[in-house]
Amino acid sequence: MLTLDRIYQAAHTLKNVVRNTNLIPSPNIAPDCTLYLKTENLQITGSFKVRGAYFKMSRLTDQEKAMGVIACSAGNHAQGVALAAERLGIKATIFIPSVAPLSKIEATKRMGAQIEIIDGVYDDAYDAAVDFQQKSGGVFIHPFDDIDVISGQGTIGLEILDQVTDFEAVIVPIGGGGLISGVAFAIKKLHPSCKVYGVQAAGAGSMYSSFKDKQRQSLTGVSTFADGIAVKSPGVHTYELCEQYVDEIITVSDDEIATAILTLMEQQKLVTEGAGAVAVAAVMFDKLPIKGQKVCAIVSGGNIDVNILSRVINRGLLTTGRLSELRIEMLDKPGQLNEVAAIIASLGANVIKVMHNPGGENTDITSCSLHISMETKNKSHFAEIKQAMQAAGYSIVEDLI
Amino acid sequence: MLTLDRIYQAAHTLKNVVRNTNLIPSPNIAPDCTLYLKTENLQITGSFKVRGAYFKMSRLTDQEKAMGVIACSAGNHAQGVALAAERLGIKATIFIPSVAPLSKIEATKRMGAQIEIIDGVYDDAYDAAVDFQQKSGGVFIHPFDDIDVISGQGTIGLEILDQVTDFEAVIVPIGGGGLISGVAFAIKKLHPSCKVYGVQAAGAGSMYSSFKDKQRQSLTGVSTFADGIAVKSPGVHTYELCEQYVDEIITVSDDEIATAILTLMEQQKLVTEGAGAVAVAAVMFDKLPIKGQKVCAIVSGGNIDVNILSRVINRGLLTTGRLSELRIEMLDKPGQLNEVAAIIASLGANVIKVMHNPGGENTDITSCSLHISMETKNKSHFAEIKQAMQAAGYSIVEDLI
Repeated sequence: MLTLDRIYQAAHTLKNVVRNTNLIPSPNIAPDCTLYLKTENLQITGSFKVRGAYFKMSRLTDQEKAMGVIACSAGNHAQGVALAAERLGIKATIFIPSVAPLSKIEATKRMGAQIEIIDGVYDDAYDAAVDFQQKSGGVFIHPFDDIDVISGQGTIGLEILDQVTDFEAVIVPIGGGGLISGVAFAIKKLHPSCKVYGVQAAGAGSMYSSFKDKQRQSLTGVSTFADGIAVKSPGVHTYELCEQYVDEIITVSDDEIATAILTLMEQQKLVTEGAGAVAVAAVMFDKLPIKGQKVCAIVSGGNIDVNILSRVINRGLLTTGRLSELRIEMLDKPGQLNEVAAIIASLGANVIKVMHNPGGENTDITSCSLHISMETKNKSHFAEIKQAMQAAGYSIVEDLI
Repeated sequence: MLTLDRIYQAAHTLKNVVRNTNLIPSPNIAPDCTLYLKTENLQITGSFKVRGAYFKMSRLTDQEKAMGVIACSAGNHAQGVALAAERLGIKATIFIPSVAPLSKIEATKRMGAQIEIIDGVYDDAYDAAVDFQQKSGGVFIHPFDDIDVISGQGTIGLEILDQVTDFEAVIVPIGGGGLISGVAFAIKKLHPSCKVYGVQAAGAGSMYSSFKDKQRQSLTGVSTFADGIAVKSPGVHTYELCEQYVDEIITVSDDEIATAILTLMEQQKLVTEGAGAVAVAAVMFDKLPIKGQKVCAIVSGGNIDVNILSRVINRGLLTTGRLSELRIEMLDKPGQLNEVAAIIASLGANVIKVMHNPGGENTDITSCSLHISMETKNKSHFAEIKQAMQAAGYSIVEDLI
């Protein structure tokens, strides 16, 4: 059973293993409330997951420890289990789907775990892990639906209240629900007037739907780039704890998450993954009744593949109108490119990419198309540029915002 | 005169203005030493500069405050002065060269300073600032060569020794020398056995050359993407303080800096600018005699334009062999692309971009060229792929690493 006692026990066990991560004030992100970030992306292994995995594994019997542990994950849980295994001297076998990014596989390998790469997606790796568990007899470490794991994540709740005692709301990312279950329990027991809100990605809202319909339910598929919270089914324990201790659960879109990641990079100099940025996205896009309040958003992790990060930066710049792209059609005659470039320059935008091609099959044989990417100040700046081009007689075929 | 007393005074003045930024252990970056990062990129305004600017401005007389302050900067100093001015109720006029990135101009504007954008580069903006100072009679806030500014930056030295008392070396970025002057002074006075090392960008090594030749000298030009330390001349005060208190100064290349920025993002989830990453680059590329030691690297700032960051990520991936590009020449006949793709796939690399073009003027009329970008594990993985292609008869025209 989950108790405060067990969470305090976890805090004691984790004392010399994990960082008591900092609460960083974040005045520029949300001028309407007093926002602090609990920076678990700066945790060792780059996410909070090591807390639950370590506490769980530290409580195994000597016999269980000798049999080794098994996990299935492409990301944060894998790194948490691998690090805990190394520190506790337990053999870990971790099943990773072949679709996982090279960088995450390499990071897990570096920690010394035995890695089994399974052709396919998460479910294929999970099946292989279960098979292996039955053969080897090792302990399967669940990523969220386990009371010890939940107790480990709950230590974040203790730390938050120790760092700032009078929060009015704490906002927590939800995948399977392990993090919010532990945090909500700790906070409601110690400081019941503080609201606890959960945030999911709109494309993976299994806990959101379950909470709304008041019964646990699974999705047939998930669709979000926030892979750390792309979970089809809430846990049994975690669903019950959310129902009891969480005040509200909302969702944010992938575009909103991308904008939050970009904002956290620019305003706070923090690298976050999709899952890590959803609580901040909820604040930025006014999804919660927190105006004027003292609020803590948990930034749960920062393990994002840099190739994906590059795309996210791009998407965030497009969404906020800082990068703008358009394709115009024009006559293929001298001076046209010059005229277009002059319009853009006169309005203070900065061209960063140009593609100039002869017309395609649906256009005049004498026309050509010009695809331009430019740095702009915001959406209204881009609108001004489009207007000037139209006034000069250019036809905008596609507005790629 | 610089004294410990003055630095303690600065610490007291700054107490409720700046963050006492965290020292974060960083075991993965440098397995050979015990490395901590002093994360001034997580400072308000994204860099340490606000410390010196605020302390300097807090000590102006009421009459000086009434006249307002003037600064010239495209980056961190501008934001530091703007924030200090807002907090202290002083009017600030900041001259920014038109080449500065939109994002930095907008960030400085948001803090409420009066911004004058001057056509041209830094020197043009500086001339305009000096003109304006003579007309307005306001106080010019120097970015580094001022004892109060240096005292403000020195508070970082106090914090470091308060956080961990037994460092054997502290590594500090150098532009004009304000940061290292204050930090080296504080450290040598309190804990003389600790070495203090300075790091410059190889393309802007004015303090490096001055220190080596034992006389202050200027460069005719600078060339580095680390704009925060692209300074042509060390200060008079800062040169003297470096000569007296710094143990050694070394330089790192732009490629080394890019690799450090990428590593800090991936391993530590920290966004750093070029200037902010040089001390870590010095550790990563073994430039200093610190093996086995307990070492602090100051990460001085994180204000990097995201468009530039995208390019830096790319450069870092190329430098470490995580992204590889090559151009091969082949006959323009069916099946060739398929064969090349099969070689790459069989060796476990992931193709991310392909350009397939007919041959240019120096090639056979029946040949074509194929430009491929792919994710690879490291340089030897890429070498393996090239070897397999050559074995299959493809000619590698250009190896774009």
